[in-house]
Amino acid sequence: MQQSAALRMEEAPSVEPCTFVLFGASGDLARRKLLPALYRLALEGYLPPESAIVGAALPWMTTERFRADMREALERAPEVGPVDETAWRAFAQRLHYVPMDLSRGDDYQRLGHLLDRVDREHGTRGNRIFYLSLAPTLHGEVVRHLGEAGLTKAREARGWVRLVVEKPFGTDLETARALNQRLHHYLDESSVYRMDHYLGKEMVQNLLVLRFANRIFEPMWDREHIDHVQITSAETVGVEGRGGYYEKAGVVRDMLQNHLLQVLAMVAMEPPSSLSPEAVHEAKREVMASARAFTPERIRTECVRGQYAPGLLAGGPVPGYRQEPGVAPDSRTETFAMLTMRFDNPRWAGVPFYVRSGKRMAERLTEVVVQFKDGPLAQGTPNQLHLRIQPDEGMALRFATKAPGRTVHHHDVALDFRYGDTFGTRLAEAYERLLLDCMLGISTHYVRNDLVERGWELVTPLLEAWGPGRNDYPLHAYAAGSWGPDAASRLPQADGRRWNRS
Amino acid sequence: MQQSAALRMEEAPSVEPCTFVLFGASGDLARRKLLPALYRLALEGYLPPESAIVGAALPWMTTERFRADMREALERAPEVGPVDETAWRAFAQRLHYVPMDLSRGDDYQRLGHLLDRVDREHGTRGNRIFYLSLAPTLHGEVVRHLGEAGLTKAREARGWVRLVVEKPFGTDLETARALNQRLHHYLDESSVYRMDHYLGKEMVQNLLVLRFANRIFEPMWDREHIDHVQITSAETVGVEGRGGYYEKAGVVRDMLQNHLLQVLAMVAMEPPSSLSPEAVHEAKREVMASARAFTPERIRTECVRGQYAPGLLAGGPVPGYRQEPGVAPDSRTETFAMLTMRFDNPRWAGVPFYVRSGKRMAERLTEVVVQFKDGPLAQGTPNQLHLRIQPDEGMALRFATKAPGRTVHHHDVALDFRYGDTFGTRLAEAYERLLLDCMLGISTHYVRNDLVERGWELVTPLLEAWGPGRNDYPLHAYAAGSWGPDAASRLPQADGRRWNRS
Repeated sequence: MQQSAALRMEEAPSVEPCTFVLFGASGDLARRKLLPALYRLALEGYLPPESAIVGAALPWMTTERFRADMREALERAPEVGPVDETAWRAFAQRLHYVPMDLSRGDDYQRLGHLLDRVDREHGTRGNRIFYLSLAPTLHGEVVRHLGEAGLTKAREARGWVRLVVEKPFGTDLETARALNQRLHHYLDESSVYRMDHYLGKEMVQNLLVLRFANRIFEPMWDREHIDHVQITSAETVGVEGRGGYYEKAGVVRDMLQNHLLQVLAMVAMEPPSSLSPEAVHEAKREVMASARAFTPERIRTECVRGQYAPGLLAGGPVPGYRQEPGVAPDSRTETFAMLTMRFDNPRWAGVPFYVRSGKRMAERLTEVVVQFKDGPLAQGTPNQLHLRIQPDEGMALRFATKAPGRTVHHHDVALDFRYGDTFGTRLAEAYERLLLDCMLGISTHYVRNDLVERGWELVTPLLEAWGPGRNDYPLHAYAAGSWGPDAASRLPQADGRRWNRS
Repeated sequence: MQQSAALRMEEAPSVEPCTFVLFGASGDLARRKLLPALYRLALEGYLPPESAIVGAALPWMTTERFRADMREALERAPEVGPVDETAWRAFAQRLHYVPMDLSRGDDYQRLGHLLDRVDREHGTRGNRIFYLSLAPTLHGEVVRHLGEAGLTKAREARGWVRLVVEKPFGTDLETARALNQRLHHYLDESSVYRMDHYLGKEMVQNLLVLRFANRIFEPMWDREHIDHVQITSAETVGVEGRGGYYEKAGVVRDMLQNHLLQVLAMVAMEPPSSLSPEAVHEAKREVMASARAFTPERIRTECVRGQYAPGLLAGGPVPGYRQEPGVAPDSRTETFAMLTMRFDNPRWAGVPFYVRSGKRMAERLTEVVVQFKDGPLAQGTPNQLHLRIQPDEGMALRFATKAPGRTVHHHDVALDFRYGDTFGTRLAEAYERLLLDCMLGISTHYVRNDLVERGWELVTPLLEAWGPGRNDYPLHAYAAGSWGPDAASRLPQADGRRWNRS
C-alpha cells in the first residue's frame, strides 16, 4: 500500500493575504465571474482581511465609481444572491481602481506606486496576483511592461508574485510559444497560472477522486474493459453578436484546443505518482504526448466539421451562422467539430475517444460517457458511466438487471447521482475554486506551458485543413437545434457505436 | 465472443397443461403460498386451460368444500388482491380434492383413478406434477407409495411426471441421502425438483444477470478486487408458537444449510458454461466442493452461535427463547448463527464470506454486501455493492466522490436502485416463478441432489459441535431486537471489517 500513502490528498495550507490585480476590470468576465467569485470567497472566510483587490482598465473613473460598478455587478450575478450590507461594506473597502493605458510603460510605474501603498495600508505582505483578463493580443505586451516595471519580482523576502492568464492562450502554436517565452523571461513557470475554467468544474475535479479513490472504477479504466469514450460539449447559444470574433476563431480554437483537451487529459491520464501539481501535470503531459497526430487521412475519415444552418430551438426559429451579424455570407468557419482522438499507449490502444463540441445544438450539455465492453451475457446497451459536467452535475451508472417477472429478460437501469440532490447546497463556481487555488499556490488545476503548446500542436493540422481558403474537406451544414451534422453521428456507427445524445 | 453466444438466455418454451397434485393441501403453505401462486399464474395466462389441480390431504371433505376453502385462502393472500369472479369460476373448475391417508397404499390407487379421470376430463395429456408439502418424515413414504402405485412413471408417450419436494430436505446428511436414494429408485434426477424458495426471489435470480451480463461487475468478482462478502438473513419473528419444532431444528438446519448456502453458491460460483440448468448446477457444485470444512478449530474461532434473551422489539418487550412455549428452560438450541465460509479455490483464496442468520433480530432483512478492496486514494468506507433480497428488493453501489467545495474531501455516496421505484409493479412471488419453472421443466433454480447433500455435509460438524449434550462451545445470549451476539460483531472486527448492519 505504498502507492496508497503517496497518493493521499494533501491537507490544504492556509490562505495568505495578497493584492489581486485585475487587468480588464471593466470587462465582461470581471463583472460576471471574477468579482462575484472573490466576493463569495470573502463571504465564506477564504479571503484574509488583509487582502486587497485592484482593478485596472482603460476607462477613467474613480475607485468610488468602480466600487459602485462592482456592487451592481454583484447584484446581477445569479450565484451571489442578495448582497449582505455588512459583508459588502468590508469587501468594498478592499476595492481600488487604477485607470491605465496598457501600452504605456509610465502607467505601470503608477500601478507600482499604488500597489506599494495598498500593501502598506492593507498589510498584504507584498503578495500579488496579476490576473490578465484581456484580449490575447495584449497578453505579451502587458507581461513585458510588468517585467520592465519590476512588478514580476517579489518585493519582500516573504512575498510572492503570481500571474494568471485567461484563455485564449495564443491563437495558434506560434503565438502560444511566443507568449510562453515572454512569460518565462520574467517569471518562473511555477508562478504562471493558465486558467481554463473547465478544470474548476466540480465533476472535472471529481475525476481524480472517482478514478483513483474507488476500487470499482480504477481497475476497469483501460482498453481491456472500456470500449470507447465520448466527450460532448454542446451549447444552445449561437455567436451572440460576436460573429466578427468567431469568424477568426471557430470551435476548434474556441472549445476543443483548450477545454475539451483538458477534460480528455483528466479522463485518459495514467494515475499520477502523487496529487502534487507537478505529478498531475506530468501525467497529463504524458498522455497527451501519446495522442495520435491528425494526418490528412485521419482528418478525412475520423473528424467532422459542421456549421449551423437556420433551424428551430426552444420552439422558435433561429438564424443560421451565415445570417449572424459580422459573419461572411459564404463563411466556412466551423461551429461544430467532432474529433476521434486516439492514444498510442498500452492503456488505450484501440480505444477511440470521440470528442465533439458545437454551437446551436439541441441542448446545453457537457458530459463524458465511458462505455464499457459487453459482459459475457450482455443483451442491449452495454454498461455506461455518465459524468455530467454541466448542467445538473452528477453521474449515472447504467447496467443490466433482470426485469422482474417469471422469465429472464434484461432491463437496463441507471443508478443516478446528482450533486444537487445529495448535497442540496449551491456548488462553488469554477472560478471560486480556481482563484482560491491560485491564492494557495496550488496549480494542479491550471494548465502548464507544455500542455498548452501540445494542445495547439495537436489541432494545428485541423486548423490548417479547415482554415480559410481550403475547400478540400467537407463542411457539413446542420440545423440549429440538432445534435450536429449527420456525418458526426454516422462516424461512430461505422464501428457499431452511437452517441449517447444524437 | 463465442462464450457470449453460449451464455445467452434461452427463450422460454411454452407451458404444457398438467395436473398439479398437491400433497398437504390443507396445510399452511398450500393456503398461504401455493394456491395463491397457482391462481396468479392462471390469472396472467401462464396456466393452460387444460390444467388441473388436485388437492390431497387427510381431512375428509368434498371438492366443493375444498374449493370454498381455497377461495377463502385467496381472499386472505395479500399478493392476490380482490378476487375476480370470472377468473375464480374458471379456476375453481380446475380444483379437485381427494382425502387420503398417506400411509395406505390403497389410497394411492384411488388417487391414480382420480388422476386418470382428471386427465380425460381436462385434457392434461398425462403430465403430472406431484408437490410434497409435508413433514419431512413423510417424504420417503409418499415417494414409495407413489412409485408402487405406478404414479412416478409417465402414463402416455408424450406425458411427463415431475416431483417437487419442499424443504426441509432431510434433517441431516443421513436422512437426506436416504431420501435421495428413495427418489432415484423411482425417478430420474431430472424429474426431481427440490424447492428452496430463496432461489425464486427476484434479487437472487438477478445475481445471474448482474454478475454475467455487466462488464462492470464480472471482472471485479474475485480475490483481486473483493475484500470480503457478507450475507445476512435476519428475522424479527421468534419461533411463533413452533417452539417444539424449533428445539429440534435450530437456525443452522432451518436457514443456513438450505437458503443461505444457496444464495452463497449463486454469489460465489464460477461463470457457468451456459445457463442450462445442468451448467448452473455444475457451477454451484464446484464452488461448494471447494468450501472449507468446519474443523473444531474453525468452529471455535470463525463461527458464533447465539440464543435470544428477552428484549425490546418495535418498542415492546418480547420474551426470550427459553420463555417461549414448547422450549426447554435450559435449552441450548441456537436461534442465531454466524459462519465464516471460505473457498479454497483460485477465485476466492483469502476472501472470507461472513454468513449469519437469526430470529428476533433488529430488522427483517436479507441482503448480500460485497465489499471491494480500497482504491489507491481511498478515504473512509470502501466501495460496497448491496443486494437487498428482502424486503424492498434492489441494490445500491456505495462509492467515493469529491465533496463539493473548494478543497478536496471525499464523500461516500450511494447509487441506489429499488425494483419498486423503477418497475412500479408488484413483483411475482418466489413461488410463482418456481412453479412456472417446474411446469416448463426448467430446474435451474431448484436444488440438485448433490448440492443438498453437500450442504448437510458442510454443516454436520456444526450440528455435532452445537448439538444436544455438547457444552464445549459457547452459546452467546443476545437481546431480542439486537443484531445478534457481540461475539458475531467482534469476529470480523478482528480483521478490521464490520457488518453493514450491527
